[in-house]
Amino acid sequence: MTNTNIFSLKMDARDHECDIQGVVNNAHYQHYFEHARHRFLLHHNIDFAVLAKQGIYLMVAKIEIEYKASLKAHDQFQITVEPEKISRLKVCFLQKIYNTQTQALMAIAKTTVVTIGNDNKPLRNSPLDALF
Amino acid sequence: MTNTNIFSLKMDARDHECDIQGVVNNAHYQHYFEHARHRFLLHHNIDFAVLAKQGIYLMVAKIEIEYKASLKAHDQFQITVEPEKISRLKVCFLQKIYNTQTQALMAIAKTTVVTIGNDNKPLRNSPLDALF
Amino acid sequence: MTNTNIFSLKMDARDHECDIQGVVNNAHYQHYFEHARHRFLLHHNIDFAVLAKQGIYLMVAKIEIEYKASLKAHDQFQITVEPEKISRLKVCFLQKIYNTQTQALMAIAKTTVVTIGNDNKPLRNSPLDALF
Amino acid sequence: MTNTNIFSLKMDARDHECDIQGVVNNAHYQHYFEHARHRFLLHHNIDFAVLAKQGIYLMVAKIEIEYKASLKAHDQFQITVEPEKISRLKVCFLQKIYNTQTQALMAIAKTTVVTIGNDNKPLRNSPLDALF
Repeated sequence: MTNTNIFSLKMDARDHECDIQGVVNNAHYQHYFEHARHRFLLHHNIDFAVLAKQGIYLMVAKIEIEYKASLKAHDQFQITVEPEKISRLKVCFLQKIYNTQTQALMAIAKTTVVTIGNDNKPLRNSPLDALF
Repeated sequence: MTNTNIFSLKMDARDHECDIQGVVNNAHYQHYFEHARHRFLLHHNIDFAVLAKQGIYLMVAKIEIEYKASLKAHDQFQITVEPEKISRLKVCFLQKIYNTQTQALMAIAKTTVVTIGNDNKPLRNSPLDALF
Repeated sequence: MTNTNIFSLKMDARDHECDIQGVVNNAHYQHYFEHARHRFLLHHNIDFAVLAKQGIYLMVAKIEIEYKASLKAHDQFQITVEPEKISRLKVCFLQKIYNTQTQALMAIAKTTVVTIGNDNKPLRNSPLDALF
Repeated sequence: MTNTNIFSLKMDARDHECDIQGVVNNAHYQHYFEHARHRFLLHHNIDFAVLAKQGIYLMVAKIEIEYKASLKAHDQFQITVEPEKISRLKVCFLQKIYNTQTQALMAIAKTTVVTIGNDNKPLRNSPLDALF
């Protein structure tokens, strides 16, 4: 987290997100990553909700998450977002979760997003192009 | 929200919490209310997660939610928490959600909590007594 | 559950719905109730998702849930749904959750639904009228 | 889905799992995959919840999900589960979601699970060994 140019969002683990094992359930990380990604996009004037109403859908085609350590109740963490254009139609978002208190790396995600139109086909002129 | 003595937590609606209707799904309000309540308790050194490990369970016996207006994607809001002891064994938490931008009242919840021990019976000496 | 005329849906508690206390988190009951209600409506040819696309919104105005006993991982349960017209604009759904194995009553919900149009005002001719 | 030896679980998409785009939110697929995986384990007498209480934690180390097509409200689907031992300490679960009506492949997941003890270290004798 030395690079201060990287977008980062502060969040905290909520009690109801923890499961029987006493740690945040895996699927909630995906919610965290999505929320940070959408905040990043909003910061660049790309609004997921508004686009959906216009028939422009940012669809996740693939996600890979590596879980390094477990978030627990009340843990505060930061999620970074770095976009990378990997083909004409695909954008990959590299994201990391760091425990705010210990600076430990908790999880890494790579999410590939494709922009789809009302005809369910990839759009060549994606709003995501503005990121690059 | 004129009474500055009332505990209040700032939150924001996440895109994934919105449903087909484009507004935050009802059940998520219950998550919001729970999270604010647990933060309020933590502020008073009552830790839901730690208590659960000790075999002391803060159980919701009843919840009533009135939905006044719909939260939408990106809406910022504040949740207040006011505890009231309603019987020897029951504590009721009165909570309200206000839209931060418009100050509009969005929802009201009354949640009745009972403290249960490992034998599944109400505890007479609840950690919640410290609130009064 | 002697009255076989009452609509009832079979469901089971999923591990990820259980929280630190090892029981199903309160807010998930609201998801269960909603899912059973929507299945009941679908059974009567009222499709929440299709209506939303047409600008007809079935909105929860109020919900009251009494938690009688805790659902645990793998518990199978049945949710009943009984509609009642409580005013020209409001329908109340009475719902109960029974543990399938023990027949114990686990929770009771009363949900008041109002039908809203695109102008955010109650619709006088609600699709819900077909239930009565 | 010709191989009838492969474990498979029937599920259906719930309205509240659909987001603003009108399709099931990505993170819910992870819940679906987890639920099917835990049912598969239970079928082999491996109980995630019971193990957690014994201090034996089945932890997801990595997950990869490919989204092929979108599940919509009311869609019924089947999730398959195939375990593979990929190292002394790691088990990978290959899972696929098929739309029940169309037989279309909707999503593929590879989930790597490690068994952890109370000391937060991998257990050499994992209950998962019984699968092979």
